[in-house]
Amino acid sequence: MNRWIILCGLLWSIGNVSAAEPPKQATTVAQASSPGQILTLELGLDEGRASWRLSRFGEPLFAPSRLGFLLREGGKLERNLELVQHDLKTVDNTWEQPWGESRFVRDRHVQLTARFRETLGLRRTFDVVFRVFDDGIGFRYVFPKQDGFKFATIDDELTEFDLIPDATAWWIPAGEWNRYEYLYNTTPLREVGQVHTPMTVRTQNGLHLSFHEAALVDYSSMWLRRVENQRLKAQLSPAAEGWKVQRTLPFETPWRTVVIADQAGGLYESNLVLNLNEPNRLGDVSWFKPAKYVGVWWELHLEKSSWARGPKHGATTANTRRYIDFAAEHGFRGVLVEGWNPGWDGNWFGDGNHFDFTQATEDFDLKGLADYAKEHGVHLVGHHETGGAVSHYEQQLGPALDLYARHGIDVIKTGYVADAGQIERFDRKGGPVLREWHDGQWMSRHHLRVVTEAAKRRIAINPHEPIKDTGLRRTYPNWVAREGARGMEYAAWGNPQNPPEHEIDLVFTRMLSGPMDYTPGIVSLQGRTHPIPSTLARQLALYVVIYSPIQMVADLPEHYAQHKDAFQFIKDVAVDWSETRVLNGEVGDYVTIARKVRNSEAWYLGALTDEQGRVLTVPLSFLDPGRTYRAEIYRDGPKAHYRDRRFEFEVEQREVTAGEILTIRLAAGGGQAIRFVPISAQTPQEP
Amino acid sequence: MNRWIILCGLLWSIGNVSAAEPPKQATTVAQASSPGQILTLELGLDEGRASWRLSRFGEPLFAPSRLGFLLREGGKLERNLELVQHDLKTVDNTWEQPWGESRFVRDRHVQLTARFRETLGLRRTFDVVFRVFDDGIGFRYVFPKQDGFKFATIDDELTEFDLIPDATAWWIPAGEWNRYEYLYNTTPLREVGQVHTPMTVRTQNGLHLSFHEAALVDYSSMWLRRVENQRLKAQLSPAAEGWKVQRTLPFETPWRTVVIADQAGGLYESNLVLNLNEPNRLGDVSWFKPAKYVGVWWELHLEKSSWARGPKHGATTANTRRYIDFAAEHGFRGVLVEGWNPGWDGNWFGDGNHFDFTQATEDFDLKGLADYAKEHGVHLVGHHETGGAVSHYEQQLGPALDLYARHGIDVIKTGYVADAGQIERFDRKGGPVLREWHDGQWMSRHHLRVVTEAAKRRIAINPHEPIKDTGLRRTYPNWVAREGARGMEYAAWGNPQNPPEHEIDLVFTRMLSGPMDYTPGIVSLQGRTHPIPSTLARQLALYVVIYSPIQMVADLPEHYAQHKDAFQFIKDVAVDWSETRVLNGEVGDYVTIARKVRNSEAWYLGALTDEQGRVLTVPLSFLDPGRTYRAEIYRDGPKAHYRDRRFEFEVEQREVTAGEILTIRLAAGGGQAIRFVPISAQTPQEP
Repeated sequence: MNRWIILCGLLWSIGNVSAAEPPKQATTVAQASSPGQILTLELGLDEGRASWRLSRFGEPLFAPSRLGFLLREGGKLERNLELVQHDLKTVDNTWEQPWGESRFVRDRHVQLTARFRETLGLRRTFDVVFRVFDDGIGFRYVFPKQDGFKFATIDDELTEFDLIPDATAWWIPAGEWNRYEYLYNTTPLREVGQVHTPMTVRTQNGLHLSFHEAALVDYSSMWLRRVENQRLKAQLSPAAEGWKVQRTLPFETPWRTVVIADQAGGLYESNLVLNLNEPNRLGDVSWFKPAKYVGVWWELHLEKSSWARGPKHGATTANTRRYIDFAAEHGFRGVLVEGWNPGWDGNWFGDGNHFDFTQATEDFDLKGLADYAKEHGVHLVGHHETGGAVSHYEQQLGPALDLYARHGIDVIKTGYVADAGQIERFDRKGGPVLREWHDGQWMSRHHLRVVTEAAKRRIAINPHEPIKDTGLRRTYPNWVAREGARGMEYAAWGNPQNPPEHEIDLVFTRMLSGPMDYTPGIVSLQGRTHPIPSTLARQLALYVVIYSPIQMVADLPEHYAQHKDAFQFIKDVAVDWSETRVLNGEVGDYVTIARKVRNSEAWYLGALTDEQGRVLTVPLSFLDPGRTYRAEIYRDGPKAHYRDRRFEFEVEQREVTAGEILTIRLAAGGGQAIRFVPISAQTPQEP
Repeated sequence: MNRWIILCGLLWSIGNVSAAEPPKQATTVAQASSPGQILTLELGLDEGRASWRLSRFGEPLFAPSRLGFLLREGGKLERNLELVQHDLKTVDNTWEQPWGESRFVRDRHVQLTARFRETLGLRRTFDVVFRVFDDGIGFRYVFPKQDGFKFATIDDELTEFDLIPDATAWWIPAGEWNRYEYLYNTTPLREVGQVHTPMTVRTQNGLHLSFHEAALVDYSSMWLRRVENQRLKAQLSPAAEGWKVQRTLPFETPWRTVVIADQAGGLYESNLVLNLNEPNRLGDVSWFKPAKYVGVWWELHLEKSSWARGPKHGATTANTRRYIDFAAEHGFRGVLVEGWNPGWDGNWFGDGNHFDFTQATEDFDLKGLADYAKEHGVHLVGHHETGGAVSHYEQQLGPALDLYARHGIDVIKTGYVADAGQIERFDRKGGPVLREWHDGQWMSRHHLRVVTEAAKRRIAINPHEPIKDTGLRRTYPNWVAREGARGMEYAAWGNPQNPPEHEIDLVFTRMLSGPMDYTPGIVSLQGRTHPIPSTLARQLALYVVIYSPIQMVADLPEHYAQHKDAFQFIKDVAVDWSETRVLNGEVGDYVTIARKVRNSEAWYLGALTDEQGRVLTVPLSFLDPGRTYRAEIYRDGPKAHYRDRRFEFEVEQREVTAGEILTIRLAAGGGQAIRFVPISAQTPQEP
């Protein structure tokens, strides 16, 4: 492709470079523009230091931003560099997801590979690979096999992102005691400290950007630390030993990603992170069935029953049978049971060495229940809570998976409940226990170990308190979902509970990384001590808005019996989609998403708002223009309000066509859910 | 209607009331909710002082805000009030515009009329009439005929608007030397001083509000002055004598309006201001033809020719014939000629007493040109520049209109070029000249006098440097357009010129009041001294985005000859519409509008962005699902930029249907214009 011209000697801006400052001046040594000529990436090299910058529609968006490393052996790898080779490649292909938000994904980008080499000393070499999409960039470092550089201990990754236009940021802190379970902060980007990704920002001019990473394999998670102004630096989650990453060459880092869209919905619709992951390595995964599940869960958070054995034990044979009957009656595939195994009786939070994953408690007949479920067309969903004792769990991993596989259990929810930085690692038999972060290199290895071991047994994995999602479900599709944010359990006992804005924030931050097991559908709208700040219709909309191929029907069977009209939507709603469209939305304010059911002509729509009631108009253009649909509309009543009129709720059915504009009225803290069922072909109109 | 319950004795909040402070406490004495239960208006009365407040979806939006007046005779009319009567009425009807952005307009509101009476002294009485729509409110004061109160000199209107959620405002200053010709300021509402309406604000939560007024008849314009925090007070434009308004009872004030929408486009799509005006008083107005026009105008601003007589005089017979030929060749109805009459030779800005409106200059053969135009199917467009000498103009008004009527001229552009506060009024023969504001009571009367006198002669009026639009085109449809903002002439000589953001700001502020004669289409993209900060495609998009039933094709014929591809769109584009939809938009950032041609199945789309390039996705759902269309797309080239690559431009034709999602790529400072022509009925799809 000759369209992407390589320029040399173009001066970016005037200034001096010192080791402590960002590159103020940078001579462009290579550049690449996105296929639609929207973004232009330039690689710079000045006084032997490499940097990148980015412009959009000809306007600078990122100022020259550092590249490089601090390595323990052989010193820094960030100066005295020369560009020894670079090349461009154009890619445009489309691939298919086995399940997901959309069936087909287009991957269209220009790739610039630049090889740098030190001019002094060890003359080490590495590549920087940029993929420039119309809707963002991804870049990674690749360390090729080479003489004299066999092993790398990374003390610091020096990658930076120096955003030019002033922006507002939505973020959660990184490096603190909690995992990812925070409410989102909204502040000027200039006031951000150290944050987890995905972090979303909106510039004064209304441009939206999401910072994240893709394909986090055998490497530490990237946090972002603000250095000054709007300059952000990669801050790798540290290993117990103090370094950040250790690897043998050849290896490559995860992709550092920035998704860029004019409208907030463009961030959600982007497939950039998935595209930067490797294709499916597992082959046929049709054994996994996207499905809804029920189970012994919400009653635990309400303290109606307990994980621990005793008179309140939830995971009993009788209680589980009750859920199996409920699932069978209403057509739900899965039944989760938490507390089914020994280890819950004492203190287990951050102290999970008592868990036994290879046998059930005496009041839980695993085999009998598995058989009972099978007779009723239902499948148990397994549960492995580690309490953060990960080495302990790994010691039992094979037999634990085998046990479930023997009983036909093909989805496992795992758990890592422990304070951040408190994951237990046994380095050696009898040695001291090391403490790891949930998202360091060691845990990145652990999660993939569980996922690949499970895949061998045709089991899907759904980790709670996980490492963040970076799109690895493309490569390992059995990594079907995860938690990794404040989920519905905070509605039971959170202080504060999740306010309505939280779920909007999730869509435009956490959900940009991948599916979340949010466990919606609490139609009783009542936590342990406080009412849930939500309307009834909102609980239904969550099934459409918060994507996961496994969706919990999380409330108690007796509560659904009291809300049969709302329950009907939960029974109907799909969990696997061929198309997804964000019809409107603003970060922190509201969102409307439409999804087309996989292998069907039906559509679902979900809309959520924050604490402010809203009226949104939505063209139904996503529907097939040739058909008439029955719209089954579940909405807030005229006086509904998330604080004091939560149950005011209306169901309406009427016929609609693609040409209509729907008015969606959302109460304060409310939502709306619609099912569109095609009922006929439309009569053609006269020309 | 019993749905709107009248409550008494409900305490709003605790606090003390003093004359200098807003009502902190207010007892609700009457209330009305909008038809869709979105807004609830409450009238309060505390210690004899009346106030209003508003909630939306059950959340307070406006805190209790004052009502009342300072009157010169008989004192204040704002305390010692009692509510003597109130009633509710529900209205839902649909009316038709003779031309406009849309053919049918629905008027659906609940009206609360409350009669207050003083408990002491003169026992004067007045009504406050509130109309509560789903998308906003309007309220006015009505002074009925009564004993002892025959005449009112209004020294101050005390109406206030106390917005609760923090907001950003887009505004221009009021009470300064300029008329409405400013670039828009974007500041926190808390930093606003005294502003013209329409003023648009967006709350932190993303709610949009537009403050304005409707039906400004025989009254002074309302400016808004910020009193403290986000409390705004009506500030009436003063009369030369110092008072604000003088009226004989019975009379009623204009409507004070607040349009409220979740999305920016909802402000533009609202018909609230039009609905608050009286129906058409002129009867059949089919003699007016929405049309495009050309003429002697841009060459004047480029100083290629002059308004004044002499060697450079633009309004010569020969030059006008050239424009008539050009109009005839390309199908434009009108030919404007500025400088056709005596009075331009000396200093006329703010000093127009030399203008003669009843005869042409010696080098301009009015009758001959009118006949020549008629032979070619073209109509001259008249021009009356007053230079602010309004009494002088009024003295000639009848004969001046008669002259034009005799020559078949049915549209007149009027002009009021004078500094604000410098309109010349002759109070008495030989008395001192009084100086009026462009927007005071006296000018409100003047403009309606011109419009009604013109209507008698079947002439339409298009004032420049006008009083602001308040929707009176509904009542007097021959008031077809006006200026009232920074128009295209600033591209010729403005310092600064209009930056790209300005036209976006116009859509969400000025254009909320009514049609603007912006005079777009400068395809040469070159002002007198500076290039115009616009792309070529943007000039086309303006014809769709900036609505007026008369649209100038403003550039020189020889310039259009150099841009035949772009000119084709200008020839094709319609000026009268049956439907208008704002497909997306953010105040100050970007906007996309689609309009359906009146009496046709064709559609046009226009999109504009500010200084930032953007990619917008637009479902084509506004198209008829049963048809295929040829889309004629006029867009920015891949490297176009408003500063240095203004002419990079592409035209593409392709077939589209309603189900498609269009990607609109807008260069920095760019635009896109699309014509959709139905070419066939669509084949019905299988059910």
